[in-house]
Amino acid sequence: MAVELNRLSATRAAQLLARRELGAEQLLRACFARIEQRDETVRAWAALDKDQALAQARALDQSATRGVLHGLPFGVKDMFATCDLPTRYGSPIYENHRPPMDAAAVALCREAGAIVAGKTVTTEFATFQPGPTRNPHNPAYTPGGSSSGSAAAVADGMVPFALGTQTAGSIVRPAAYCGVVGYKPSFGRVARAGLKSLADSLDTIGGLARSVDDVALFASVLMRDPGLRELDYDARPRIGMYRTLQWRHTQPETREAYARAASTLSRAGAHVAELELPPELCALVQVHADIMSVEAAQSLAFERTRHAAQLSGSLQALLDAGAQISADEHRANLARAAQGRAQAEPWFEQYDILLAPSASGEAPFIDQGTGDPQFCRVWTLFGAPCVHLPFDTGPQGLPVGLQAVGRPGDDRRTLAIARWILNVLRPDGDA
Amino acid sequence: MAVELNRLSATRAAQLLARRELGAEQLLRACFARIEQRDETVRAWAALDKDQALAQARALDQSATRGVLHGLPFGVKDMFATCDLPTRYGSPIYENHRPPMDAAAVALCREAGAIVAGKTVTTEFATFQPGPTRNPHNPAYTPGGSSSGSAAAVADGMVPFALGTQTAGSIVRPAAYCGVVGYKPSFGRVARAGLKSLADSLDTIGGLARSVDDVALFASVLMRDPGLRELDYDARPRIGMYRTLQWRHTQPETREAYARAASTLSRAGAHVAELELPPELCALVQVHADIMSVEAAQSLAFERTRHAAQLSGSLQALLDAGAQISADEHRANLARAAQGRAQAEPWFEQYDILLAPSASGEAPFIDQGTGDPQFCRVWTLFGAPCVHLPFDTGPQGLPVGLQAVGRPGDDRRTLAIARWILNVLRPDGDA
Repeated sequence: MAVELNRLSATRAAQLLARRELGAEQLLRACFARIEQRDETVRAWAALDKDQALAQARALDQSATRGVLHGLPFGVKDMFATCDLPTRYGSPIYENHRPPMDAAAVALCREAGAIVAGKTVTTEFATFQPGPTRNPHNPAYTPGGSSSGSAAAVADGMVPFALGTQTAGSIVRPAAYCGVVGYKPSFGRVARAGLKSLADSLDTIGGLARSVDDVALFASVLMRDPGLRELDYDARPRIGMYRTLQWRHTQPETREAYARAASTLSRAGAHVAELELPPELCALVQVHADIMSVEAAQSLAFERTRHAAQLSGSLQALLDAGAQISADEHRANLARAAQGRAQAEPWFEQYDILLAPSASGEAPFIDQGTGDPQFCRVWTLFGAPCVHLPFDTGPQGLPVGLQAVGRPGDDRRTLAIARWILNVLRPDGDA
Repeated sequence: MAVELNRLSATRAAQLLARRELGAEQLLRACFARIEQRDETVRAWAALDKDQALAQARALDQSATRGVLHGLPFGVKDMFATCDLPTRYGSPIYENHRPPMDAAAVALCREAGAIVAGKTVTTEFATFQPGPTRNPHNPAYTPGGSSSGSAAAVADGMVPFALGTQTAGSIVRPAAYCGVVGYKPSFGRVARAGLKSLADSLDTIGGLARSVDDVALFASVLMRDPGLRELDYDARPRIGMYRTLQWRHTQPETREAYARAASTLSRAGAHVAELELPPELCALVQVHADIMSVEAAQSLAFERTRHAAQLSGSLQALLDAGAQISADEHRANLARAAQGRAQAEPWFEQYDILLAPSASGEAPFIDQGTGDPQFCRVWTLFGAPCVHLPFDTGPQGLPVGLQAVGRPGDDRRTLAIARWILNVLRPDGDA
């Protein structure tokens, strides 16, 4: 086989498994071998139980029932409850927590035949205090966060797919830093039962993989939408290049990738145009941050009141910031967000998709935290589907890309066009 | 004292506690005495730990810190996680579940000084399979559901307040059947961390008490809004009487209460007018039911796949119904709901509040289930704040009332006008 088993895409592995040219145990063993070889450096995993997972793989190899994800191993961000693995939310408060159930997203993937390889490292309660994970391309750099372990594990070929969550930029940013595809669906499309809540109006479940097809394959189960497994797109998309109001914070590698994408896509037949920046929306980055801190201070009320000494300084600061914002200010912020969302609606009549920066540039050094979600906050606030597309590298040899942003609710078309774009920008890779 | 301690309103008890004319332990003992006397009949409680609660009350009596809810006992619907009491969600699947945390709503009330008296009975996962609770006015009748124990405990004078949740009609309906005030806030206003999720786009946390002031007092903590403790209203409200498209299912007692309310409020100075019924919205009751069953089938994926034998037939039927609805139909339903919400917006320019049936009539017999949420589904779908107001009795001597429905997001004014209305309709009771 041309590709090592642990580097197989989920889509390709599913075909081989369906034809019984590959066994679930065989595939999982290849993934575990990679983990054993590399995780001392990458540290993507918060919990593993190889024997248990291998037993499940053997049972699947024997089983007559074959779901859409039959035999595919996946990682689960440690913000999701799992009934058979520790669930620590990246916090010492939950060192010994073993919930008696799976989160809905985990149960749905398992129902379709997928195998939980283990729990991946999250930052503390999916906020900013880093876990131990390193960037697999170079351990001197951060993998990003909060879905740190999910992005690193997928990038390093340890699993073909991992669940992530995004409240600010927690899927798109680590996907960008690790050079994988990161998909944050439209708000409200994946059931959050059993997910540790951070900010109720923002938390969104999604996933990370090495191709658009692979995130879409798992999403088709999570969103119960077989249409996500048929992403053919043969029109000439109208692409709105959107620098965002944080453009001055972009590094040269992002500006270069942005310019290169515009010209390459135009040459490939897309209608590419620069979207005018709406300065009236420039306050929305702060509006998002304020909504998130208010809701986090409510959601984490138990941890804040009973276990304050075990919260990091950075989380404590976030919660304190939330406590300073009055109920009236919060309501005004929610209204501003709704207004901004309405102002952005016409963009999607003019364009089929937007292309925008995912992060300022390559991953920062590991000692500088997990990076800044400023390029993602507004899209999360709008509930828009976002797909990070990796197609370039920066001066340190680290991954660089852009995110495709679609109309809220229009996930199928967003993924199809994102796939088309990635095919153009990275013609030698998996779509 | 004119009122027995266990019948004190939360607002009045808070005043006496603040003046140290009442102790937290003394109040809690009176509540527990009532529970001991009556719960063999009412069966409102799923879990109690009196010693633990009394120890907390004694600690509060000694404490210098005095929060807004200092020393007030409350009941917690058994859909919320509690760190020191069993959490069973009304299902045998979770017979031995003891989560290591409090739900955010519980933690926020405790932070403000309130004491968890115990867990109140919920129907199975807040759906339709009844628990053991009886209507405290007459045990031959249902207390309604799914917040069965919360409504019954408050109505019976066991606690002044209890947390509830509403996904269809699970606060307003039991409030109506038990004759207490039930408040379902606007969607998204109370953090749901630690609440067992049923339908992500509908689940709403609220509460039940014997007065509007009391639900508002607890809500001021849950929504971090001190304005909810100042509900004076001295204008003449414009009240839209709204029969709802299910009017033909109302029983005579509801029609009489409706007519009496209109004339009494008009005489008291309100501008009362009948709202025209929009027949184009008549499908929304089914749209709500379909959205709820689809989301429930996702949220309960773990229970459905791993513990199917322990689900009731009625829940199994609900989940099966959800599985029959395609992703495309579901998306179309969500769009219809948003459209309906937009069509209802102008109503709140014409009226300060709507008054509508809460249920078809008095509580049904206990062997007929927990009643029908048809009069609540659309308001929950719209995310509108609803306050059930008890002010009448029916032919069986059981409580009857109406619900006040406000503009989504406008909870403060909704509660203030609801309080004004209840004062007019029940001049001898607590507001």
